[in-house]
Amino acid sequence: MSDPISPLAPESFPEMPPLAGVQLATHAAGIRYEARADLFMAALAEGTTVAGTFTKSLCPSAPVDWCRRILANGDSTARAIVCNSGNANAFTGRAGDTAAELTAELIGEALDVDPDRILLASTGVIGETLPTAALAAGLPALATSLTTSGPEGWAEAAAAIRTTDTFSKGAWSRIDGTAAHIVGIAKGSGMIAPDMATMLAFVFTDLAVSPEVLQHCLSASVTRSFNRITVDSDTSTSDSVLLFATGEQIDDDIHDFEDERLAGFQTALDQVTLDLAHQIVRDGEGATKFVEVRVSGASDDAAAEIIAFSIANSPLVKTALAAEDANWGRIVMAVGKAGQQADRDALEIWIGPEQVTAGGVVLDGYDEERATAHLAENEVVISVDVGVGDGSATIWTCDLTHGYIEINAGYRS
Amino acid sequence: MSDPISPLAPESFPEMPPLAGVQLATHAAGIRYEARADLFMAALAEGTTVAGTFTKSLCPSAPVDWCRRILANGDSTARAIVCNSGNANAFTGRAGDTAAELTAELIGEALDVDPDRILLASTGVIGETLPTAALAAGLPALATSLTTSGPEGWAEAAAAIRTTDTFSKGAWSRIDGTAAHIVGIAKGSGMIAPDMATMLAFVFTDLAVSPEVLQHCLSASVTRSFNRITVDSDTSTSDSVLLFATGEQIDDDIHDFEDERLAGFQTALDQVTLDLAHQIVRDGEGATKFVEVRVSGASDDAAAEIIAFSIANSPLVKTALAAEDANWGRIVMAVGKAGQQADRDALEIWIGPEQVTAGGVVLDGYDEERATAHLAENEVVISVDVGVGDGSATIWTCDLTHGYIEINAGYRS
Repeated sequence: MSDPISPLAPESFPEMPPLAGVQLATHAAGIRYEARADLFMAALAEGTTVAGTFTKSLCPSAPVDWCRRILANGDSTARAIVCNSGNANAFTGRAGDTAAELTAELIGEALDVDPDRILLASTGVIGETLPTAALAAGLPALATSLTTSGPEGWAEAAAAIRTTDTFSKGAWSRIDGTAAHIVGIAKGSGMIAPDMATMLAFVFTDLAVSPEVLQHCLSASVTRSFNRITVDSDTSTSDSVLLFATGEQIDDDIHDFEDERLAGFQTALDQVTLDLAHQIVRDGEGATKFVEVRVSGASDDAAAEIIAFSIANSPLVKTALAAEDANWGRIVMAVGKAGQQADRDALEIWIGPEQVTAGGVVLDGYDEERATAHLAENEVVISVDVGVGDGSATIWTCDLTHGYIEINAGYRS
Repeated sequence: MSDPISPLAPESFPEMPPLAGVQLATHAAGIRYEARADLFMAALAEGTTVAGTFTKSLCPSAPVDWCRRILANGDSTARAIVCNSGNANAFTGRAGDTAAELTAELIGEALDVDPDRILLASTGVIGETLPTAALAAGLPALATSLTTSGPEGWAEAAAAIRTTDTFSKGAWSRIDGTAAHIVGIAKGSGMIAPDMATMLAFVFTDLAVSPEVLQHCLSASVTRSFNRITVDSDTSTSDSVLLFATGEQIDDDIHDFEDERLAGFQTALDQVTLDLAHQIVRDGEGATKFVEVRVSGASDDAAAEIIAFSIANSPLVKTALAAEDANWGRIVMAVGKAGQQADRDALEIWIGPEQVTAGGVVLDGYDEERATAHLAENEVVISVDVGVGDGSATIWTCDLTHGYIEINAGYRS
């Protein structure tokens, strides 16, 4: 947190509303960091439903195993989420499972609820055992400092879950047609890649939603947000997105897919998850550009996504963006290596509003100066039409700079 | 070529023997570079057979299209290979095809052979048309400066095909049981990735080998060498490996797979291609470490290769190697994201000779200082056993440093 704030950071952390049924607490337990909160919890009203998506890593952390087991048990209700930063509790064997159990038991005892109703997350260094003494001292203290959720509590919560993040990430939305809200916080900056929920995000609503509907809405939303971003193509062992619905704002459940309020809920949820996902890219390690990669004309949407990720993950494309160099040959290279159907002789590339190629060659009248001027902006759009079909996809990424090397050749994360 | 020489470069370019049936020439045609040779050709004795492997990019260069067409025609004989550096003649549309045809016609005329017996390669910037005036002036001059192959000619040839390479790459071997040799030159430094022949290499033998056997041996050899290296996971539009057999050293062909000299030929060929592949990694853009990644215990060899590439391409692993930081949690991460079967609780990791993990946790007695001492070397070995089966694979890569960013945020390649 001592690194300078990303130049792509939002101007300030949003003023996020209180959410009925959610109490927040943070605590400095000294797990790894000095003089900052490293524990966060949200205590949840009885009857709160929960949905989750987790890393597809085959070496998941102990908290990911813990949450998966609970959500698989069928009783998808939760009374708290507890998260520590600085230590991922991943690749810690039996000791890792024990630390997870201890955490749930201590919080369960303090709140007088079943430990299996406590969801867990950890983020930070892989391979170090969580210090149980710090947990035993810190977790009861955490539980006693719960206060009603509100702007200050959300800001403190978002700060407590940061690791290499240079700013706290939060987003909220009102749900159309209801008095309810959605509020989310997230962390993530490096080890960010697609194909799953590649970071931590905790999203809360005071609407009442059945677990089945909640999971459906979350999975759909993650596909369009967290699974569409990449910083460095590396996938964490700890990634989790959890969505909680306290049901405190209105009494009747959205328990089926025909409910007319569902569209408003999904829209608000998508807005919050996409906002949080973009904030993670904006805090990409070393990032100086927020880059939108749009691919169209692919054989189908899945092919378009593969091509877009091939561009967004290419180190040569990302270094060219960092240099504000309109080196579109590298975009051709990345399309070519994606292995998806593309018509080289119909390929169209735009850098911002400037069309670069058409019909397999550089466009007559292409003005590199205009392309370079677009690349000088903080926000860059690369569009590619591969000339085959109707498939399209949009991916968000950042550039690859000396800052990324600086951070990752130094920080033990 | 003004960049400092890679710290991983061999001490000197090898003294490579003359090869019967091969004449060499280089010429400074001013296609892109000032005051250096940028054209190379090898003229080949009548009856020379040829085999090739090419980029799987769907946006291949005009010379790749040209060579593929010739090799597909069934008459796999060649009278010359011509290569220019500084311009890849890729994504240049009809003008690119015309430049390729012009090159073959001018050389065919000078040598009095069918243009379809002239193989072509280009390497450098993507998307710029090859200047036909420079070709028209340079190619006849190139053809008139042919001399018998020998140490000096090979060194000049290897220099003429360089782009961002910081040293010239050559390797040779005697073929056991014969008087024949294999000699190869290569170029490559960035835009180096697996899944195909990701660079240019021209390999010659004075043994006589039928096209069918030659292609079989080359494909096998490329699988074990050029397809097992990665610098930056980016795949070029121009990658080509061509193998020529002049048959000038001995009269009888190796024309069937039962020939007893075949084993010696394959061994010598493998030695040359692996040596050239390693030299490309040693010249990886910005590289300060030559890294061998060994994976064992996978469900099969293909799974082992995917896991090894997941480690070798991970920016977080590569930056940790650059920092000489024994951050093995990032290796766990890379194993986990590979998507292949792995037993987290049986995972064993070694950094050089130092075992780091066993049974899903850090090994009792693991000494980080010894691991760090190994990482301080120029040559690093990372070994991982994923505890599932008998599959294994070895991949070679380099670290990711400020040098890579420096080179690629500057050079328009």
